[in-house]
Amino acid sequence: MSQPWSNDEFLMRLRRIGEQRYHDKHPYHIRMHEGKLSPEQLRAWVANRFYYQQNIPVKDALILAKLPTREDRRRWLQRIVDHDGREGDEGGIEAWIRLGEAVDIPREDLLSERLVLPAVRFAVDAYVNFCRLQPWPEAVASSLTELFAPTLVSRRIVVFEDLYPWIRPQGLDYFRTRLHQAPRDADHGLELVLRKCCTRREQERAVTALSFKCDVLWSLLDALQLAYPDGESCV
Amino acid sequence: MSQPWSNDEFLMRLRRIGEQRYHDKHPYHIRMHEGKLSPEQLRAWVANRFYYQQNIPVKDALILAKLPTREDRRRWLQRIVDHDGREGDEGGIEAWIRLGEAVDIPREDLLSERLVLPAVRFAVDAYVNFCRLQPWPEAVASSLTELFAPTLVSRRIVVFEDLYPWIRPQGLDYFRTRLHQAPRDADHGLELVLRKCCTRREQERAVTALSFKCDVLWSLLDALQLAYPDGESCV
Repeated sequence: MSQPWSNDEFLMRLRRIGEQRYHDKHPYHIRMHEGKLSPEQLRAWVANRFYYQQNIPVKDALILAKLPTREDRRRWLQRIVDHDGREGDEGGIEAWIRLGEAVDIPREDLLSERLVLPAVRFAVDAYVNFCRLQPWPEAVASSLTELFAPTLVSRRIVVFEDLYPWIRPQGLDYFRTRLHQAPRDADHGLELVLRKCCTRREQERAVTALSFKCDVLWSLLDALQLAYPDGESCV
Repeated sequence: MSQPWSNDEFLMRLRRIGEQRYHDKHPYHIRMHEGKLSPEQLRAWVANRFYYQQNIPVKDALILAKLPTREDRRRWLQRIVDHDGREGDEGGIEAWIRLGEAVDIPREDLLSERLVLPAVRFAVDAYVNFCRLQPWPEAVASSLTELFAPTLVSRRIVVFEDLYPWIRPQGLDYFRTRLHQAPRDADHGLELVLRKCCTRREQERAVTALSFKCDVLWSLLDALQLAYPDGESCV
């Protein structure tokens, strides 16, 4: 049996997954951040990513049901509130609907899911089922793409403002809110994973879970790339 | 195919389950409310029921993950907060731990689950798995024992104060809080079930789900009755 990694080594291996496999390196995402997506391609990204957004509170409730202590459940619960909203705070899903409106997707169109590609549905459903069926440390580890999100999202706000001036500015609220939510979530997720994954086997499974999650996000963009190839207009 | 029941008929059939099978009619419960339980028998009830209490936010998170709309999830989420607590509000599980202390069960003893009987564990786990595996309208219908709870709980407060004066009064906070939480929860649960169960088949499945839940609560008391028979002292 191999020795467990030190926390530093474990963290380095988690971070390396992000460096190698996070979706910011996908061609569709690169083109998005170079300002090269057509309005149709950007709309397709918003509409398909919405299916992912809608499933965040679902997977978080499934993880919540497995967490071992009240204290951890209390902290995790905030993620559901962040997306579903509460009295006086519309929440992330509503903010994403307004992003849709800011790129001219009517609310009903977004909610109808008519633009959601089958492969996107498969990938997102696979993620939800992973959180439903796997032990909680792996489900939590799969959420650690949040470690890599803030850098990307802060760039995205600037990119959208500068390179897609046709997007109405109130559409960017979702990303602004995530700038402070994601680091807080990543801190808690990391704390849980470091606390629970003490053997080498558990550490490796956490790394694999994070890699799986990167596959989910990557597949979403693969599906978009195939359906909305460069230079064409399909929405 | 049979015609669906009217809402009144459906409600009457749900209420009839409570009249016939709710645990207030169980001999152990009757003795509790007659002031006839020994301190040991009452402690056994508190310690075993704690296993049920601890699983309430778990089953509620599993139901939350299945609810069809953000609005319904938002409302259902309050149940998890009610039990797990939040900043400045200790929550129902902590209140139950204080009930344990008020009947002289040290916190560590309660949390250790050493007093939890196997049959109690089986019944409560069956309830959680029911909520995990069945369609949400049935899982929600199984929560409708809340329709019958307030009457019972308001009597229980008086009974505990009058007939068990050795119970320290702060132990009753849990029941006091439930007096206003349970009717609110029952309203939402009932609204969901009436909205979703429109065919006779769905209505019948809801009634069966509520009957199953009554079996769970009843089994808990059966296990206590067998392990702590009248006139003996086992804790």
